[in-house]
Amino acid sequence: MAEMNLVQTRVDAIRRLVRRKATQPLTRALTKSSAADIAEALAHLTRNECLFLAKHLPDTIAGETLLTCNEETMRVLIDGVAFERLTRWLDEMEPDDQADLIERLPDELQRRLLERMLPTDRQNVEELMAYPQDSAGGIMSPVAFRLNDATTCREAISALQEQGDVEMVFYLYVENDAGQLVGVTSLRQLLMNSPSTALAEIMTSDVIAVSAETDQEEVARIAQRYSFLAIPVVDDTRKLLGIVTVDDVLDVVREEAAEDMLKMAGVPEDSSNDTDGALTAARKRLTWLLVTLVGGVGLSEVIGLFEETLAREAVLAGFIPLVMGLGGNVGIQAATLTVRGLAVGGVAYDRASSARLLFKEGQVGLVMGLALAVLLAGYCLVRYPNWELAAAVGLSIVLAVLTSAVLGTLIPMSLDKVGVDPAVATGPFVTTSIDWIAIVVYFVVCTRLFGF
Amino acid sequence: MAEMNLVQTRVDAIRRLVRRKATQPLTRALTKSSAADIAEALAHLTRNECLFLAKHLPDTIAGETLLTCNEETMRVLIDGVAFERLTRWLDEMEPDDQADLIERLPDELQRRLLERMLPTDRQNVEELMAYPQDSAGGIMSPVAFRLNDATTCREAISALQEQGDVEMVFYLYVENDAGQLVGVTSLRQLLMNSPSTALAEIMTSDVIAVSAETDQEEVARIAQRYSFLAIPVVDDTRKLLGIVTVDDVLDVVREEAAEDMLKMAGVPEDSSNDTDGALTAARKRLTWLLVTLVGGVGLSEVIGLFEETLAREAVLAGFIPLVMGLGGNVGIQAATLTVRGLAVGGVAYDRASSARLLFKEGQVGLVMGLALAVLLAGYCLVRYPNWELAAAVGLSIVLAVLTSAVLGTLIPMSLDKVGVDPAVATGPFVTTSIDWIAIVVYFVVCTRLFGF
Repeated sequence: MAEMNLVQTRVDAIRRLVRRKATQPLTRALTKSSAADIAEALAHLTRNECLFLAKHLPDTIAGETLLTCNEETMRVLIDGVAFERLTRWLDEMEPDDQADLIERLPDELQRRLLERMLPTDRQNVEELMAYPQDSAGGIMSPVAFRLNDATTCREAISALQEQGDVEMVFYLYVENDAGQLVGVTSLRQLLMNSPSTALAEIMTSDVIAVSAETDQEEVARIAQRYSFLAIPVVDDTRKLLGIVTVDDVLDVVREEAAEDMLKMAGVPEDSSNDTDGALTAARKRLTWLLVTLVGGVGLSEVIGLFEETLAREAVLAGFIPLVMGLGGNVGIQAATLTVRGLAVGGVAYDRASSARLLFKEGQVGLVMGLALAVLLAGYCLVRYPNWELAAAVGLSIVLAVLTSAVLGTLIPMSLDKVGVDPAVATGPFVTTSIDWIAIVVYFVVCTRLFGF
Repeated sequence: MAEMNLVQTRVDAIRRLVRRKATQPLTRALTKSSAADIAEALAHLTRNECLFLAKHLPDTIAGETLLTCNEETMRVLIDGVAFERLTRWLDEMEPDDQADLIERLPDELQRRLLERMLPTDRQNVEELMAYPQDSAGGIMSPVAFRLNDATTCREAISALQEQGDVEMVFYLYVENDAGQLVGVTSLRQLLMNSPSTALAEIMTSDVIAVSAETDQEEVARIAQRYSFLAIPVVDDTRKLLGIVTVDDVLDVVREEAAEDMLKMAGVPEDSSNDTDGALTAARKRLTWLLVTLVGGVGLSEVIGLFEETLAREAVLAGFIPLVMGLGGNVGIQAATLTVRGLAVGGVAYDRASSARLLFKEGQVGLVMGLALAVLLAGYCLVRYPNWELAAAVGLSIVLAVLTSAVLGTLIPMSLDKVGVDPAVATGPFVTTSIDWIAIVVYFVVCTRLFGF
């Protein structure tokens, strides 16, 4: 793809200049590059090459690069770069980025950097660090350009011209004399109206704002719902604390999607941390496997009940994986579609739509079960010319697939109703219960209905 | 949460006004509401209530509402609203939204609406509809505010003031005399510089642009990488075709995350279509289940090879689900972490990092396998005081879990290397191959090493 080539070319150029130790062209290239490009180049360099690059990194972009690069590169840089330089890098960053960076550093370095900051900056950063990382407060930027509602358009434009360092002004937030957020307007509105108009006359007064404690997923949902480029964060008295910008929202959407995916695979949230050793990682991931283990041990007892049958008709054992596997796959398909529906809809299904979805999944399960059963029964008739085996396996498949489709829909819905995140349901929890049902159905059909 | 309550209050207010048939206040409320709020209110109304609401819907927001609401409401509205009104709604929309809406309508209505449009509008829409839906061309908005590089800041501001109807001007795109995109600047830059400065002097000339054919996922990646609010789309000669805005990017990120989730669950992309009947839905979802079916039939043959052993030691059958289940879960954990790494990283792992990840997953698999084996062997010793069974089951678990962890990492990596989307690998494909390995390992260990 032409565009990725463009990005790749930029990244490769940086790497080449570092390897050739071309000081002058490297400095020039770094000045023009984005933090993301530099971070990617760093990921492919050796320790010494990283430090050589860091030596020529402009302070203005160094902090953002540090925030963007991977854990390993970050360790190399904070170990290898002088403390004084680190503090200069930090000084160039926005408060929300400062807080994010400091939070990712070792405790000792955190303390030293905070001590060195200006008291006001430090207070800003410490306030931001106090909010939970996944709340609006944790992702907001405390700098928001704000103006009194009596300000005229002309005054607003001058104010904007003086205030050089505000990043990304999309919206201008308007406060009343008490400092409460009362309206919002845009740079464009300033230009479209006569210079003497007061902001109070042109602003939209119906501002949607969130509190600092609002969950970041909720913030993302509101931003998407209204196509906002930024959402103001206010305190209890409606004083403006900061803004969450759309690039933070994008990060949230990606993060949450990745989290859901991991949850569905039975990987606990915090185990994606690359710095964990194998022991810690194993311990974290074992949690859900214990559910499978206990479920499986129980299942071995159930199968044990049919030991005599199995000893007589060992061929029955051969279809255990098939009944389990098909039931499990169908259950996961249904559960994933349901979880996705809940996530995209953002609202709980009401009674009528739940019933409709359940009925439809039941139908789909029945059709799939019948199709698979016909294929499998056909195979059994040809392979072991035994119509009873064919009928038993076929009927088991229909029942197992049908139940799995219904359960795969019902479990996430019920979890959502009682306030549990439905994404956890497709993990080992659903598959284990479906395994149970499939096996019990299989043996009951084989022994009771077909007298094996 | 206070914020969702705010949204909910707005939605509920609309519903109440409709039910009370309060014409005047409803019209006022709809004028102030967002399309998303109205669409949500519609989802909870009966057919007649929907049509009553539609009667009072301002034309300016009706098209967007239609685009936002669910399939069912859309059908109710396009059936119940007069053709002439629909055309007025369409006239108020941006070309990209017009194209999106028309694409979702029945063929006959598509034809009639296109015939009715102004020739230039129609051409715009038909051009947009010609691009694949998941390409930059398919999601771009063809209106982008563009200026010649000789324009001064003062002239640019006047041009902007005249051009009232451009939605969301974040960036001003600058063209040379040949109409090629040569730079980009912002509204803010216009204000910060002297009115007589030419755009050529203040613009950033290093513009990252994509082509109309670029995959939407690639566009989203670039937007996130550089925190762009909009990305210009250009043709082969670098003429500006349109822009993809950040709200489109947000939609793409959500869509792609949902798609990946479905793929990993073995649900084909197009089967999330709610309008499919049960038969069609079943046919689509059966594809991957056939892999499981064929794999399972093969597995029944493998187990058949050990029929004699099973007839003698039926207890061995009881542990089949356990060995398969644990192997499968560990494989899915590893595969999901790998798929996520590939998706978030956006770049293929290089040889060194692949080897490192593989080694680490192997270690994690070994530790988890050992832990599970100890628990399970302990259970076997207590339940069936038989040290050979305990040892055989324990050893099988270690080997199955270890292999699954390695395979779960290796398969998505290899697929990515050869250009196949790794998300498909965690579906029935990985689980089926892991089932095979787990079962073969189990029976070989039981019969060869422990002489069952």
